[in-house]
Amino acid sequence: MINYADIAGEILTRLRTARPVVHNITNFVVMNSTANALLAMGASPIMAHASEELEEIIGIANAVVINIGTLSRPWIDSMFSAVRACAYARKPYVLDPVGAGATRLRTETAKTLIAEATPAVIRGNASEILALSPQGGTTRGVDSLHTMEDAAGAAREIARSLGTVIAVTGEKDLVTDGERTLVVMGGHPLLGYVTGTGCAASVTVAAFVSQEEDGVVAAASALAFFGLAGEKAAAEVAAPGSFWIRTLDALYNITPEELASKARIAAL
Amino acid sequence: MINYADIAGEILTRLRTARPVVHNITNFVVMNSTANALLAMGASPIMAHASEELEEIIGIANAVVINIGTLSRPWIDSMFSAVRACAYARKPYVLDPVGAGATRLRTETAKTLIAEATPAVIRGNASEILALSPQGGTTRGVDSLHTMEDAAGAAREIARSLGTVIAVTGEKDLVTDGERTLVVMGGHPLLGYVTGTGCAASVTVAAFVSQEEDGVVAAASALAFFGLAGEKAAAEVAAPGSFWIRTLDALYNITPEELASKARIAAL
Amino acid sequence: MINYADIAGEILTRLRTARPVVHNITNFVVMNSTANALLAMGASPIMAHASEELEEIIGIANAVVINIGTLSRPWIDSMFSAVRACAYARKPYVLDPVGAGATRLRTETAKTLIAEATPAVIRGNASEILALSPQGGTTRGVDSLHTMEDAAGAAREIARSLGTVIAVTGEKDLVTDGERTLVVMGGHPLLGYVTGTGCAASVTVAAFVSQEEDGVVAAASALAFFGLAGEKAAAEVAAPGSFWIRTLDALYNITPEELASKARIAAL
Repeated sequence: MINYADIAGEILTRLRTARPVVHNITNFVVMNSTANALLAMGASPIMAHASEELEEIIGIANAVVINIGTLSRPWIDSMFSAVRACAYARKPYVLDPVGAGATRLRTETAKTLIAEATPAVIRGNASEILALSPQGGTTRGVDSLHTMEDAAGAAREIARSLGTVIAVTGEKDLVTDGERTLVVMGGHPLLGYVTGTGCAASVTVAAFVSQEEDGVVAAASALAFFGLAGEKAAAEVAAPGSFWIRTLDALYNITPEELASKARIAAL
Repeated sequence: MINYADIAGEILTRLRTARPVVHNITNFVVMNSTANALLAMGASPIMAHASEELEEIIGIANAVVINIGTLSRPWIDSMFSAVRACAYARKPYVLDPVGAGATRLRTETAKTLIAEATPAVIRGNASEILALSPQGGTTRGVDSLHTMEDAAGAAREIARSLGTVIAVTGEKDLVTDGERTLVVMGGHPLLGYVTGTGCAASVTVAAFVSQEEDGVVAAASALAFFGLAGEKAAAEVAAPGSFWIRTLDALYNITPEELASKARIAAL
Repeated sequence: MINYADIAGEILTRLRTARPVVHNITNFVVMNSTANALLAMGASPIMAHASEELEEIIGIANAVVINIGTLSRPWIDSMFSAVRACAYARKPYVLDPVGAGATRLRTETAKTLIAEATPAVIRGNASEILALSPQGGTTRGVDSLHTMEDAAGAAREIARSLGTVIAVTGEKDLVTDGERTLVVMGGHPLLGYVTGTGCAASVTVAAFVSQEEDGVVAAASALAFFGLAGEKAAAEVAAPGSFWIRTLDALYNITPEELASKARIAAL
């Protein structure tokens, strides 16, 4: 039987040694907090969106994050340039379809990006992921309307139809490529009282994807790591301002050994 | 005699139950911090500025914030689309005229937005509010040049002429619709050493406005709540980095009962 | 023999009294954190990029920061408007050439800005500064590839050829106008685990430049002050989330006397 927690620890070891460059085209709200999350865990973030420099930047990146949280036409154009450059340079990209289902612009942008170049992993909450299915879906802002149970079947189906890995985060996280499915336990309700924690989970997935080709294992390991950071923070403080600061601290402090002993990843 | 502190507590109770969606078109500096303030107090923030999706987003929003802190032509266009959509969908919007009086662009943009669709509340410092009066005014950046006393009369006059609620924040806060005037005490000088605390006060007003139709009462309650959070933070720490984190914590921790017992709101 | 630490303390005294207005056209990642750094130390930040208002804003600014961390064509245009307005109004500007050497867009933008109007100080890491030399250079994202020793000669040469002050930050900081060279010790490795600490060093330089015409002395004093803040923070906490919060606290708490007694600035 595979010990996924051990593997998670091994990926973190590689990440801390490699200090991978993670390039982000992301929303204005979380640029600072996700850059800090990446730095704290040991990765090297770049935030850049000018089409003129994307090819060079993706050339030095080990993984790319596309996050559609604050769209506008010029940024959408840059996202398309970026995913094409990823496809050309064979760099993995993680898509965070923030608010897919809430507006046509977001749903269509996410779907069209996926059609343009297949992401390594798509990470969203249940309603965002459901919105990417042919059957459609709906969201209340970036909040979830659907239970994870609603989403599990759709996630497998979407993963199969798109040939990608789907990571649905919620009270429990689900990661699937349509064949294998892993469940990740952890995290804390306070994560819902801080902006951009889903986005921070996505950049963690990207950092892990840069170090592990098996996207299911990489994404599940990343979510176990991020969730453990939240749990450790919540064990120390009980309100959201302090909680996020301690989460950043934990991303820096968690050792591969601690992750290997505490990650809760199971095959479904 | 009206017990405004009790009413403030009741509005907070409603807010915590309703978890209202507050949509923001705001400046780049405070997107993260105001989203975190809204989440901490129990609201659900959306940040979005693409004209293509504003109608859908405002359709699911309970209140909207327009903050002119980092303007550019495309964002001004989005702000006009948003306030028109607010008027059409009868959603209240709060205007934060950051830096009105400091530049023509800001003064004109604020005035033209108000002319396009009346805000439920305008929240600014004394010089920003004075800049919206026909007599004009001036600011030193986003800092105040005028005392609240200078502003009180102008605020009443502006409120009357525009048919809106004016909230002038400073050492004491003043809220008026031109007829009734409430004074709110609280807050702490450290708020002046953290960026975007005025902007955070504005989003708090929006969250309260979503739960209370009487704009004077809603705005005064919101400012009492926000000021109390600052006071509690300053009772724990004495420097601005830690102070803001504790302010977020306090927005989460203050109960309706505590607000009802500590809010200092008085009719003028 | 000049006591540079005493001079640093004197500049900080002036800064705390004057509360200089520092205008920033900077990258999205650090807008919040650098505004907070400026406020904490006692300056008054403005963030604005609309060409229509730059002349008015630079008119009230005491110093300007141009930071190229997240470029796009409209922002580049604003940067050129800003540096021309600085030249016209004789306001000093500090250039932070984030990622120069990593992409052609950044290298060319930095070089062309410098050619358009000479900055008072250019602050970057060694590879960014090297990229501005006629011999060229290269960076790995915004990380350093070159030792400070590699950079010292080039910095002097660039400073001479451009008639400006070059501040190269790293384990030790180097400040030179091509004739005089000062070395600043201090700081802490945790600064490398927080986003935008280089950018925060640059805004500190701008705040000090607004109070001291001798750019070499102003920049070295600023870097000693910022580094001391990092050292004090690291003496209290050991992980990056908490560390940045305590750095902001220290920027607020350090007195001129403390700076004068602890700044480590030496002529090379």
